[in-house]
Amino acid sequence: MIPNWLLKRSSLTPNRTALSFEDRQWTFLQLKEEAVLIARKLRMNGLVEGDRIALLGPSTPDMVFVIHGCLLAGLEIVMLNSRLSAKEILWQLDDSNAFRLIVEDELFHQIGIKDVPMITFSSLQSSEQRDLSVSEMWDASRTITIMYTSGTTGFPKGVRQTAGNHTSSALSSVLNLGLTDDDRWLCTMPLFHISGFSILVRSVIYGMEVRLYNKFDTESVVDELRKGSVTRMSVVGTSLQRILDEFEKTGNVAHPNFRTMLAGGGPVPDNYLRRAEDCKLPVLQTYGMTETSSQTATLSAEDALRKSGSAGKPLFFNQIKIRDTEKAGEFGEVLIAGPHVTPGYIGHAAERDPLEDGWLPTGDIGYFDQEGYLFIVDRRSDLIISGGENIYPAEVENVLLSHPNVTEAGVCGKAHPEWGSVPVAFIVVSGEVTEEDLEVHCQQLLARYKVPKAFYFVDQLPRNASNKLLRRELKEWAALK
Amino acid sequence: MIPNWLLKRSSLTPNRTALSFEDRQWTFLQLKEEAVLIARKLRMNGLVEGDRIALLGPSTPDMVFVIHGCLLAGLEIVMLNSRLSAKEILWQLDDSNAFRLIVEDELFHQIGIKDVPMITFSSLQSSEQRDLSVSEMWDASRTITIMYTSGTTGFPKGVRQTAGNHTSSALSSVLNLGLTDDDRWLCTMPLFHISGFSILVRSVIYGMEVRLYNKFDTESVVDELRKGSVTRMSVVGTSLQRILDEFEKTGNVAHPNFRTMLAGGGPVPDNYLRRAEDCKLPVLQTYGMTETSSQTATLSAEDALRKSGSAGKPLFFNQIKIRDTEKAGEFGEVLIAGPHVTPGYIGHAAERDPLEDGWLPTGDIGYFDQEGYLFIVDRRSDLIISGGENIYPAEVENVLLSHPNVTEAGVCGKAHPEWGSVPVAFIVVSGEVTEEDLEVHCQQLLARYKVPKAFYFVDQLPRNASNKLLRRELKEWAALK
Repeated sequence: MIPNWLLKRSSLTPNRTALSFEDRQWTFLQLKEEAVLIARKLRMNGLVEGDRIALLGPSTPDMVFVIHGCLLAGLEIVMLNSRLSAKEILWQLDDSNAFRLIVEDELFHQIGIKDVPMITFSSLQSSEQRDLSVSEMWDASRTITIMYTSGTTGFPKGVRQTAGNHTSSALSSVLNLGLTDDDRWLCTMPLFHISGFSILVRSVIYGMEVRLYNKFDTESVVDELRKGSVTRMSVVGTSLQRILDEFEKTGNVAHPNFRTMLAGGGPVPDNYLRRAEDCKLPVLQTYGMTETSSQTATLSAEDALRKSGSAGKPLFFNQIKIRDTEKAGEFGEVLIAGPHVTPGYIGHAAERDPLEDGWLPTGDIGYFDQEGYLFIVDRRSDLIISGGENIYPAEVENVLLSHPNVTEAGVCGKAHPEWGSVPVAFIVVSGEVTEEDLEVHCQQLLARYKVPKAFYFVDQLPRNASNKLLRRELKEWAALK
Repeated sequence: MIPNWLLKRSSLTPNRTALSFEDRQWTFLQLKEEAVLIARKLRMNGLVEGDRIALLGPSTPDMVFVIHGCLLAGLEIVMLNSRLSAKEILWQLDDSNAFRLIVEDELFHQIGIKDVPMITFSSLQSSEQRDLSVSEMWDASRTITIMYTSGTTGFPKGVRQTAGNHTSSALSSVLNLGLTDDDRWLCTMPLFHISGFSILVRSVIYGMEVRLYNKFDTESVVDELRKGSVTRMSVVGTSLQRILDEFEKTGNVAHPNFRTMLAGGGPVPDNYLRRAEDCKLPVLQTYGMTETSSQTATLSAEDALRKSGSAGKPLFFNQIKIRDTEKAGEFGEVLIAGPHVTPGYIGHAAERDPLEDGWLPTGDIGYFDQEGYLFIVDRRSDLIISGGENIYPAEVENVLLSHPNVTEAGVCGKAHPEWGSVPVAFIVVSGEVTEEDLEVHCQQLLARYKVPKAFYFVDQLPRNASNKLLRRELKEWAALK
């Protein structure tokens, strides 16, 4: 059994700040009161413990209140990505069999969904209340959230994340990062992704403030980091790059209060890590995914520089092994086990067991070095096999990014009559650079077969709401060239 | 499943300091190597996974190595109190059916046990080794330790403490106290008690250094606190008092690095808390016991002064309720539930379920105040009922200790023909004070029926190895008066 996070937390430290947004703040007691209000209104709207709803909203305090209200009411929440098309949302509503869609009014009008049983935030707000009894303890297997993840092929699968998954994830993380009274986690990641949602979970389990932003705004973020008004932050490569650019432009560095920049969503290029060091930003690379309710491995602070590029070691309660390997240094598929691993999917994938012999096959390729540090090489689905040789896009991208005028790079395979597939690169540049320059640069640093056969200059790369590179879309671009 | 603590920890942070003793230090990797060596030697001595052994040793690094060696070898450890008589040890060996007694040589000679299958530390040290395979994961229900506790009446009962109990206790504590890279826990409590053993557990789960002392030495302890070379410490009232005396004598205060003085083993008198404040010692009262693998409730730092005298709120994963009460302020028996509560006893008490409807009845009397803070009033078994009125010894002791010349006080019931029982007091004084002075002092502060009917001046009070007042022994003293 696991204590109802918010009930327990608001009883332990009612007067600590739980949430801040712009210039407003809420204590854990106030957060609980807001959430209880929502829960009573949900009850009035006919929702009862065990019901599954879908939730679509921006990263605002109201959204946080609705999330905690749903949890107090005992609901399972399908977290919908606010960048989805109406068609994709309808598909997920259908697949998840959600009883109601709870949707923020503006997004509702933007997306233009119709004929779906729904409750808007405003109608919920103006609703009457009805008494409800709130469970003080949760079963560890209780589903808290469901997040759809595209996986490697086919339709998205709805991943169950239980109370036990989220809780053990938060606990593993605290044993790695530590915890102090002044901790404040800056959240600019979408709450509908595990990267953002897991910050809300840590907040109620740790008694830690979340500093919430509706969206990533480089100047405001850098201001917080410079002043030391936050101590932790989660980023992906692109947001890290913008932060670094801004710091370098202004000549500022991060305040010593700021302790952890958790960098996920794919490998962070080495030169970002070096630049971050100059800006006094302690970047810790992490490796996690929707199926593991956030981090599985994270580099510890003391290894950040010595093991730059590594995702660290599997956190305290987690296990990782590399399929069919015996020695350090051998590449293979990353397999994950632990209390943070999803028990399974819902909807069309409900019958599919995510585990093989107790281990989650990730499709990702990685290896452990001699000291047991995990290096994620790439996503298996993106592996480019060219004339029998394996090419890992991230390796090529890293080389491209080491060129001073390249700000973003995405590499994928393009069908080729002779070699089966060849790598091609999409490039965002910040200064004068030619295709020939890049070819020479790559030839200096890579085996010939790894050098992209074409360099396409673009304004931006295809990315999702978390700024993760959409490799499938990149392949579609390549196919059209 | 729970990761094998030391294996996992030594893999995560091999080079952090795990243990220091006098001027020697061991990293987690070195600790693991020492423990593996012991485990292999235990294996050579015929001990196999699942065997139960009894362990008797002082608080030294060798003892720590043997403890971790036993855990790596998959053994259950009966932790024997080194102050027991030979007779008591033989009784516990018999009751626990321990396969071997592992005993430090000096203690072995001191206690003079004979005809028991045993292995001394020195014979273990000089033993050959044998290969063993160490489990990377433990079942949460695996018994780690067994500690005998006297309970309220009759024979001591061997309390099982599982991997899950110890782990959840450490996790609940970290969510209350926080964790930083510089944390070092000063351990002067006996390792055979849960107060000391739980520090070793936190060390391997947190990756935190234990600064180990063989025994409590006031001057050295105060020196560590003054220099800030440790950040946490566990104490009982008596050791706290000695620390306060020494600080006051020398005019020093604790270093700001020092963050938590965890005070258990019974209520700490209010005036200690005030004196501690002057010495810059942040004392947090805690409430725990052998059956709950250490802390169940602890006052958080932010409430230490405002709620002085309270044991705080039940920690994150724990629950407490007061039997048969409905409102705040009502006294009753303290009942405990949570993942830290023992699954049961071994030996003669094996058949006895420690829980009633999922809750552990503690025999202790307490109440929650309006804000949900727990106050432990006394042990039920020590309740003095006098003419139908309830008298809680701790309340009377608190009053006596508030007299400037009283350094220690123990109150218990003495049979009385008219009232059934009357309170009497045993007193250790530091200056001139008469029985009449004390009577007047008590009459000013207590209801008449609570004022001790006799004051006995003694050199010291009966205490166990953790310095906890032995109330049963006190009653025997009273009966002889």
